[in-house]
Parts: sequence; structure tokens; C-alpha cells
Amino acid sequence: MNAPSTQIFSNTDLPAVRQAIRQGRWTSHTSGVAQDRVQGNVVILPECEANDFLRFCQRNPKPCPLLAVSEPGETMLPTLGQDIDICTDVPMYRIWRDGELLEERAEITDLWRDDLVTFVIGCSFSFEQALIEAGLRLRHVDQGKNVAMYRSNMPTLAAGPFHGPTVVSMRPLKAAEAIRAVQVTSRFPRVHGAPIHLGDPSLIGIHDLSKPDYGDAVEVLPDEIPVFWACGVTPQAAIRQARPPLCITHAPGAMLITDLFNSQLASF
Amino acid sequence: MNAPSTQIFSNTDLPAVRQAIRQGRWTSHTSGVAQDRVQGNVVILPECEANDFLRFCQRNPKPCPLLAVSEPGETMLPTLGQDIDICTDVPMYRIWRDGELLEERAEITDLWRDDLVTFVIGCSFSFEQALIEAGLRLRHVDQGKNVAMYRSNMPTLAAGPFHGPTVVSMRPLKAAEAIRAVQVTSRFPRVHGAPIHLGDPSLIGIHDLSKPDYGDAVEVLPDEIPVFWACGVTPQAAIRQARPPLCITHAPGAMLITDLFNSQLASF
Repeated sequence: MNAPSTQIFSNTDLPAVRQAIRQGRWTSHTSGVAQDRVQGNVVILPECEANDFLRFCQRNPKPCPLLAVSEPGETMLPTLGQDIDICTDVPMYRIWRDGELLEERAEITDLWRDDLVTFVIGCSFSFEQALIEAGLRLRHVDQGKNVAMYRSNMPTLAAGPFHGPTVVSMRPLKAAEAIRAVQVTSRFPRVHGAPIHLGDPSLIGIHDLSKPDYGDAVEVLPDEIPVFWACGVTPQAAIRQARPPLCITHAPGAMLITDLFNSQLASF
Repeated sequence: MNAPSTQIFSNTDLPAVRQAIRQGRWTSHTSGVAQDRVQGNVVILPECEANDFLRFCQRNPKPCPLLAVSEPGETMLPTLGQDIDICTDVPMYRIWRDGELLEERAEITDLWRDDLVTFVIGCSFSFEQALIEAGLRLRHVDQGKNVAMYRSNMPTLAAGPFHGPTVVSMRPLKAAEAIRAVQVTSRFPRVHGAPIHLGDPSLIGIHDLSKPDYGDAVEVLPDEIPVFWACGVTPQAAIRQARPPLCITHAPGAMLITDLFNSQLASF
């Protein structure tokens, strides 16, 4: 799911970006797209399962920091932007039935129901802008790739049927950069905050960095340390366990872009 | 230089601690002694060399964060405490002539001169209290040892004759603790602040952690990462290079204890 070499819109023009996504002209990942805006992971569930899932997010704030929860049946997300329609404004959706991934598609208007509740969960793309502005290079951004994500052996705290491993995103950094990255991302608790691990991947159950469970692999150089952040794809692993009759998510990396600026989320 | 098993004063009674040091009854390291108070590294130089050394500290704020600089010839340090006499209140002094370590002794009253200037430099013991209060265990504290210190291959920025390697202190921590330690120590820029390296010691020129250049070795367990902070012993390495006719320092780990509380140094 690499970005096409020619952008079909001005990267900084939010209305143009949203229109391109809404009209199905942008169906790829959104790393580096409208990068001063808050992007979010999306989980849509029927009201019954939504109540369990809300408790799951409350108990697991590092992978599942909630930016917004919609009213049941409501397709607009007014706290995140003036004109966000959850049925059309995610570049690529995943449709899950009974915990199985059924299909990916670019809009979900015909699937909408009055009992569906939308959850928008903070995304590491928000702190990536702050890392880049702090002078760090992120290899997956430089290479136009999606970030590498892995299922770790760190369990989430269960709520109702939702449980499973914490999914982590990984960025290779030199030691001094990793220290700076802890400082920078600590300011953003609503988008996963500080890393949850660094160094030896096997200590968190990851045995081959070249084979991510989601996203694209990037090289880790000999003088670099892999640094791991809790990831908003964690709910997708929990959905596999919970097997709700219907669930709709974003495709990993293809996020909902909101009107909010990343700088609005900084805690100090 | 391990602490004796029986303390000769109440650890929290600052006047008693200072009297014990002043009277030569405490000549050991001060790790864990009066641990809510700011402790400082000490460098005393003739006025001529002091001017160069002041620029050295300004250029190397991570290893040499200045807490106080005395007037020439003045033995009291009023900005650090009501009754601090630099001639008697360091547990153990080192006397350097022409860059060579000549002797260690418990007071320097007979060496004092009207042209001597005292520098007090922040010490990692200040942030160790904050780390312990954050729930971290520090092995050297648990074992009653002095912290392990190493000459790295990271050069300082020279000023006049002062130059040399950055000396670092090392504490082994699990990854999640190392991340927490970056957060906690970032709040204390006047006492070295965040670590300057973590992980592979050879990347900063340290090839055997079991052989520290100063202080005591501690074990690094397989699931731990060595975490390195810039250290206030760095000036002692620079003094070896600069070879001033006279220089007086503290012995590594045997610090000047001030009246200030560590919590007064927290930046937010």
C-alpha cells in the first residue's frame, strides 16, 4: 500500500484531501498526508458491542486513546471537524463479520445502520510530525512506506469479549534520537504518548523485525535501536478475538483525517 | 569507597550530616545520604584557569551544568546554603598539580588562597531521588555502591586548555524503566537531564562495563539496557588534559551536600 508517486491533491489543502478521499480518488495510506492534522484509527461497532469496546479503550489507554465516540447512528463527528462523514472519509475500510476480515472497500454508505457507534482512536502519525520537526528522520516516511506494526506478547486488559495482544509500531533510531523521541512523544498522551519498549524485540515476543504483521518492513541499521510505540491497530487484534457480528475499521495506515491540528494535542 | 554499614548520623538531618563531614567523621561517598538535598560536583581553580573553565562549562552543559560559581577567594557559597564552607564540607577532596592526582584528603583549609574560584556542578544523585520516587530500583543504591562511571569517546567542546572525553554514569534498567527514566530525568536539566546514550556501550567507546573508570561496577542483567547520563566527573578528565598548576576537586561520588532540595530543580 505504498503511496503513488504522483499526489492527486495538494498535501496541505485539507478540503482537497478530504474530497479526494470522499470521492474514492485516494484509497492508500495517509502517512505524510495533511501531516499537520490529527489522524485517527477507526472502529465502528453495533451499540451492544460498543459498550464493551468503550470499556476496553478505557482500560488500555496507551494503544487505544479515544479522540471521539459518536452518538449511535450518527455519521458526522462534529468534535473532530466541521464536515466529516464517517461513511466516506476514510480512504480504505475493512469489513469484519464474526471476527473474520471479509473485504476492503472505499466507502460504507450502504452498510450504515442506526445502531452503529464510531470510535476514533489517536494515531502515531500525529507525533511523527513532532519528531520530524525535532530534527529526527523517520525511515518509513523517507521511503514512502507505511510504518511497520507487530503483534507483541504484551496482553491488553480484557473488557467483555475484547482482549488480545498489544500491537506496536516500530521506528529504528540511533540511541540519542531514541532518547529525544521519548521526550517528544511524551507530550502527546492522546496519540499513544511515550514508547512502551525499546531494544531487544524478543523481550516483547517479536522474533523477526523483517516480517511485520501490518505495514511495511524497514531496515534497522547496526547502530540503531528499534523503538516501539503502542499502536491503534490493537483493536483489530481484539476484534479477531471478540468476533462481533459486524465491525468496520480503517485499513492499517489509511486513517481518518480530522480538522484538528496535531499541536492542539500537546500536553505542555 | 562503599558506605560503612553503620551510619554515624541521621541520614535526613542535614546539620548532623554536614557536621560529620566537616569534622572528618564522614569521608565516604554520599550516594543515598541526605537524599532529598541537591549534591554537587566540585572544581576549584586559580582565577586565571577559572575563566577558561567557566567557558568550558558553558559549552558543555550536559556534563557540566553549573549550580554556583564563587567570588575569587570566597570560601562560603551563600546561593547553595546558609553555612557551607568549601574548605571543609566535601567528604573527600582530590588535589591535582599539573594535571596529576597528588593526594586525597578530608579538608583543604591550609591550601586555600585568595585567588581560588569554586565551581559547583549538578550531580546525578539529584535525579536519582526522583527516579526512586517514580518506582524505579537503582542497583547501585540497593547494593550500597557508588555509581559506575566511564570515560566515553564523546568529546567535550574545548575551551582554552580544557578538553577531553565526556564521562558518563551508567544505570542498568529494563526497557520500560529506561523510557520512564528519560521522562523523569528530562525534568532536571540542571543535574545532567536526560540520558545521552542507551544500549550498546561500544557505540560510545566503552568496551567493558565490568571495568568502570570511576566508582563501582554493577551487573547488567540480560533483560536490561545500560542507560548512560553525562557525569560531573567530566571536568576531572579535562583537568588531566589542561594540567593547571593547582586544581582541587571532590573525590568521585563524595559530593558537596547543599541546602537546596532536589525538587527545587525540577523544570516543570
